[in-house]
Amino acid sequence: MRVEIWSDIACPWCYVGKARFEKALDAFPHRDEVEVVHRSFELDPGRAKGDVQPVLAMLTKKYGMSEAQAQAGEENLGAQAAAEGLAYRTRDRDHGNTFDMHRLLHFAKEQGRQDELIGALYRANFAEERTVFGDEERLVELAVAAGLDADAARAVLADPRAYADDVRADEREAAELGANGVPFFVLDRKYGVSGAQPAEVFTQALTQAWGERPPLRLIQQGSADAEVCGPDGCAVPQQ
Amino acid sequence: MRVEIWSDIACPWCYVGKARFEKALDAFPHRDEVEVVHRSFELDPGRAKGDVQPVLAMLTKKYGMSEAQAQAGEENLGAQAAAEGLAYRTRDRDHGNTFDMHRLLHFAKEQGRQDELIGALYRANFAEERTVFGDEERLVELAVAAGLDADAARAVLADPRAYADDVRADEREAAELGANGVPFFVLDRKYGVSGAQPAEVFTQALTQAWGERPPLRLIQQGSADAEVCGPDGCAVPQQ
Repeated sequence: MRVEIWSDIACPWCYVGKARFEKALDAFPHRDEVEVVHRSFELDPGRAKGDVQPVLAMLTKKYGMSEAQAQAGEENLGAQAAAEGLAYRTRDRDHGNTFDMHRLLHFAKEQGRQDELIGALYRANFAEERTVFGDEERLVELAVAAGLDADAARAVLADPRAYADDVRADEREAAELGANGVPFFVLDRKYGVSGAQPAEVFTQALTQAWGERPPLRLIQQGSADAEVCGPDGCAVPQQ
Repeated sequence: MRVEIWSDIACPWCYVGKARFEKALDAFPHRDEVEVVHRSFELDPGRAKGDVQPVLAMLTKKYGMSEAQAQAGEENLGAQAAAEGLAYRTRDRDHGNTFDMHRLLHFAKEQGRQDELIGALYRANFAEERTVFGDEERLVELAVAAGLDADAARAVLADPRAYADDVRADEREAAELGANGVPFFVLDRKYGVSGAQPAEVFTQALTQAWGERPPLRLIQQGSADAEVCGPDGCAVPQQ
């Protein structure tokens, strides 16, 4: 079974939702037969690459919240994160464009290190003091921590076209699947879970999707063993 | 959409079937949205690692064919390969255990180089003079040609446990899906195509599986945008 998770590094509910999903997955009896793939979604794709600002300033400016409202929202998200055992800095976190991180995550996927990198990016963005925005060497360090090669990561970051199409393709697919926000979980392209739902909802979704996997229907011309090799040798075509 | 292909490097119909499938895939309008994954299947898992013999000797000994019958079968397979534009040595090819190649293919999958490696292994086994059996440095060279690191490939080959569980898991899944021989193609875990069917059959299967992708069903607790971040900000939980 395959679970695809659309998310953004700048999305607190994605950080929390990933932990809730993983709690359900860890306890799922068929855990070893579940493959997890991370897909790209940008919350703020229109923001210029160098335009970094504190989260609180962004919230008050973009959404017209008062500073007290914005701070209360951060405290609230921090409490939700803490309930999942996650560290969360409720003050002085930055907000910015995440396109380069998504490009790097696609490179990491190719190298089998996507889960490690997304974990490192979340922790860095939500729990650590040094910003992940506007600092490419910071991203290179996180890539290395995730098991990637520093020079290769640097090359990806230096070339804005690298993996850009993969990010855009993920975003198009999210729209096609009806995702307006993240995190958005898709199980075998059949069931969707929107938002950082409780672990029990993920358990239910995993169980339901697992139980309803359809029997395979064969499409073929002629007999099933026409041009096949098996333990008893290879079929030889009639001339 | 995802296509999984169970196959063995020692399987001539897999070599031919891959080319027929790719002909259909290249012409498929949604080609860029199809992901191909190669899965392991051993035709001769009981054969000892060092037990290498000419294909003709294997065919006459294992299946009781006459040498003329065995040679005619090879000529026939060679003609089928040629019809797909593939080189095929009908004489003096070797047969042996492919477990290490499958382990290496799982390593290549992690590195995003699986398709390159399986192509290199097929060409080497069916079209080139130097054997791929009983010669680890030959496999390392093919891994390097596929874009993998030589030392990393050598380390995988040197450790018989590396990726062994992945190979066994693929083989268990093949049995669960009802595959008794290879190549065996599975589209979105819904449709199966057994054998090196004509390209038109793959076109039909791709078209059918694409058209029948089910609409996503949402599983959730509470409202859909409960704990989600979108372009308009993050939902804040009620306390």
